[in-house]
Amino acid sequence: MAGLVSIPKPTLERLPVYYRVLLQCRDAGMQYVSSGELGRKAGFDHAQVRKDLNHIWSGGRPGLGYEIEKLASCLADFLGLHNTTDAVLVGAGRLGTALAGYPGFASYGLNIVAVFDADPGRIGGTLNERPILSVTKLADLVERLGIRMGIIAIPAESAQTVAETMVAAGIQAIWNFAPAYLQVSDNVLVRNEDLAAGLATLSYYLKEQGLPSVDSGKLSDGQL
Amino acid sequence: MAGLVSIPKPTLERLPVYYRVLLQCRDAGMQYVSSGELGRKAGFDHAQVRKDLNHIWSGGRPGLGYEIEKLASCLADFLGLHNTTDAVLVGAGRLGTALAGYPGFASYGLNIVAVFDADPGRIGGTLNERPILSVTKLADLVERLGIRMGIIAIPAESAQTVAETMVAAGIQAIWNFAPAYLQVSDNVLVRNEDLAAGLATLSYYLKEQGLPSVDSGKLSDGQL
Repeated sequence: MAGLVSIPKPTLERLPVYYRVLLQCRDAGMQYVSSGELGRKAGFDHAQVRKDLNHIWSGGRPGLGYEIEKLASCLADFLGLHNTTDAVLVGAGRLGTALAGYPGFASYGLNIVAVFDADPGRIGGTLNERPILSVTKLADLVERLGIRMGIIAIPAESAQTVAETMVAAGIQAIWNFAPAYLQVSDNVLVRNEDLAAGLATLSYYLKEQGLPSVDSGKLSDGQL
Repeated sequence: MAGLVSIPKPTLERLPVYYRVLLQCRDAGMQYVSSGELGRKAGFDHAQVRKDLNHIWSGGRPGLGYEIEKLASCLADFLGLHNTTDAVLVGAGRLGTALAGYPGFASYGLNIVAVFDADPGRIGGTLNERPILSVTKLADLVERLGIRMGIIAIPAESAQTVAETMVAAGIQAIWNFAPAYLQVSDNVLVRNEDLAAGLATLSYYLKEQGLPSVDSGKLSDGQL
């Protein structure tokens, strides 16, 4: 892949959680937070917090902890959240509607510039004040505006075709909510949000509840 | 935690992906699938597929591969998908609406029996033919029906309170879509679906695109 990453993926996925906790602390009027408190609020132990943040942060005062405003700003810089990322959303159904209106995304710099759908009943309407365009116009708009992120919120059977259209038009990162594995070239990053996997994990846990123990260490803290 | 798990978490999270691919193969009229083809469609290599499936499956014929119908049924049993899981959903906003209508859940045995909200403007309405009830009635209904799974799709600031109500009423597994870390007792499993973490991962990738390589091994296959 073209953009190379110098930080372990699990760390990368925890950084936005720290960022969110820091904003909550700041909004509560705090100036400093210890690794222990940050960890408790984020759901990781303090050693993990320190190890993760060492990748991006060399400050921190003994006895005082992390300076919230500075660390949050450093994290936002590192994650690219200070720069607004323009994205296109394909799929104006229930899930697409939820994503287009998800209030948390704005603080992460996501700007959905246009919404596409294949359903003539939806095309010409609006979603969260954005026009819903025909998916036949996807490639042209992505190329013209130089958009690099695409969000897929359509049924599995159409997802691969839409992904190929996106990539041919210049999309480099795909956020995939369709329950489908996308085959794309190596220089495109795909992030799969697989809701069924989450559900199956919980179903399995409920099924196992009360059965004899085989191995208690694997899911020991109760948080996935 | 009370229900103990005998299988590594990453394996557990891949099993529903195999299950989904097997259903697709079956619907396409296939009878057998090799570990290589299953892996290609699921996004993992064949050795990973064999290792994962060895946890639950001792069949498989040399040269023929996995018998799709039997393996799918075995996976569904293992994951508890053959038993319908009743759940309550708290939050009838955009995300809750999307979840209540997500078509994939039915095939995973999820049955949302009731929807709750705190907004008087929503209470008394319906969501996907289910009545929207006041959140003050949550505990009573969960206890009365013996429901064990709760889905949280509300803003972060109310999530902890709702989680505590759920657990006090007997909920044992929480699927949390609120961007909040929930503190619950050890015998309750929480699965956090953190959409902001997915977004930040993609933003980071786009920011790094074209920068010099530091370490190319960490995200090398482009799928998160």
